[in-house]
Amino acid sequence: MINMAVIIVAGGSGTRMGSDIPKQFLLLGNKPVLMHTIEVFKQYDTQMKIILVLPKYQIDYWTKLCIKYNFNVDIEIACGGETRFQSVKNGLALAKEFDVIGIHDGVRPLVSVSTIARCFEKAALDYTAVPVIDPIDSLRQLEGDESKALTRAKIKMVQTPQVFQASIIFKAYNQSYNNFFTDDASVVESIGYKINLVKGNVENIKITSPIDLKIAEFYICNT
Amino acid sequence: MINMAVIIVAGGSGTRMGSDIPKQFLLLGNKPVLMHTIEVFKQYDTQMKIILVLPKYQIDYWTKLCIKYNFNVDIEIACGGETRFQSVKNGLALAKEFDVIGIHDGVRPLVSVSTIARCFEKAALDYTAVPVIDPIDSLRQLEGDESKALTRAKIKMVQTPQVFQASIIFKAYNQSYNNFFTDDASVVESIGYKINLVKGNVENIKITSPIDLKIAEFYICNT
Repeated sequence: MINMAVIIVAGGSGTRMGSDIPKQFLLLGNKPVLMHTIEVFKQYDTQMKIILVLPKYQIDYWTKLCIKYNFNVDIEIACGGETRFQSVKNGLALAKEFDVIGIHDGVRPLVSVSTIARCFEKAALDYTAVPVIDPIDSLRQLEGDESKALTRAKIKMVQTPQVFQASIIFKAYNQSYNNFFTDDASVVESIGYKINLVKGNVENIKITSPIDLKIAEFYICNT
Repeated sequence: MINMAVIIVAGGSGTRMGSDIPKQFLLLGNKPVLMHTIEVFKQYDTQMKIILVLPKYQIDYWTKLCIKYNFNVDIEIACGGETRFQSVKNGLALAKEFDVIGIHDGVRPLVSVSTIARCFEKAALDYTAVPVIDPIDSLRQLEGDESKALTRAKIKMVQTPQVFQASIIFKAYNQSYNNFFTDDASVVESIGYKINLVKGNVENIKITSPIDLKIAEFYICNT
């Protein structure tokens, strides 16, 4: 039997409580974004270990939300670090006995069960898997003062969960931080592993603005 | 005085009437998408020449919509071709006496007046301008059976209008079609011109699905 865990990252120093509620706690339909996110992983596999990475000052608030919404999913909580890289490291520290480990953005509540399945199944067989979709817009790459068109058919937009066999992800996160790292795949790739791409789902957007929350509500109401 | 024209492309063989209403005719707020698109260009400059490229079989329907919605903007219509490339060529055939020519997707009704201004002003001074925004997701480029992470900070997502001085755009569209062409900038670039990038606006989405129409409605109602 393969033991699976997912590290759901809702941390990092970028998220400040201030007067605004952090995106992961905003109400989407009948409950906060983060509860939707967690539930999809449990729908895929009720045995999935959930490790939630939250900034330390948000943990109390989260606990209160769980009581308010009667949210009883068994979760282990890690404290967020100064960077996303450090937050993932802190999550990994709680995932040592697992075989296949996913890393997912807390603010992607619309990941589908089938996207999760494709990622975990591919990684279990072949070390790595990240979900991708096709871009709609044309893309250009900056080169000094100029830019050049990229061949759109060769470009993929990367979502999460990004899933890896344990030996690989622990080794990758043993490196020092490099500002080239934009996601976990780039961290793993930098130690020489091939990244397998699987099909994501277009609804699996990252909620980073009020309009994204409206889009998510639309999907929740229409699926 | 600089004479400006915009070719608004809502053609191409990909758009079939069938039982569904083509996206450019769907109702957004109180009128069809395409009417919003046209009006933004007129807001930027009431003298802007509007050349609308429509599949031949849709022209009658469009004329009826203009009567129904009392839409009296002065427009010249060109027939769409088999490909987007041919549609733009057909539009250009009606733009011969203009100095600076923009090409815009009919299904981008949320382009802002300031995006249009930035594009036309930059192209008037320096030959070319396309509006771009930063990607949210990480991106990967396929290379044979593998893929590699792109440096996200160096990638831009390209919108429209893409604006060019007349001499350049006519020369560019005098070439044969190449399937590397994904937008007008790539056509112009292929004859050796540098493409200037200006700031687009995030709301300037391309309406290609029902959810995109919902997003557009949200923006229309909240701005």
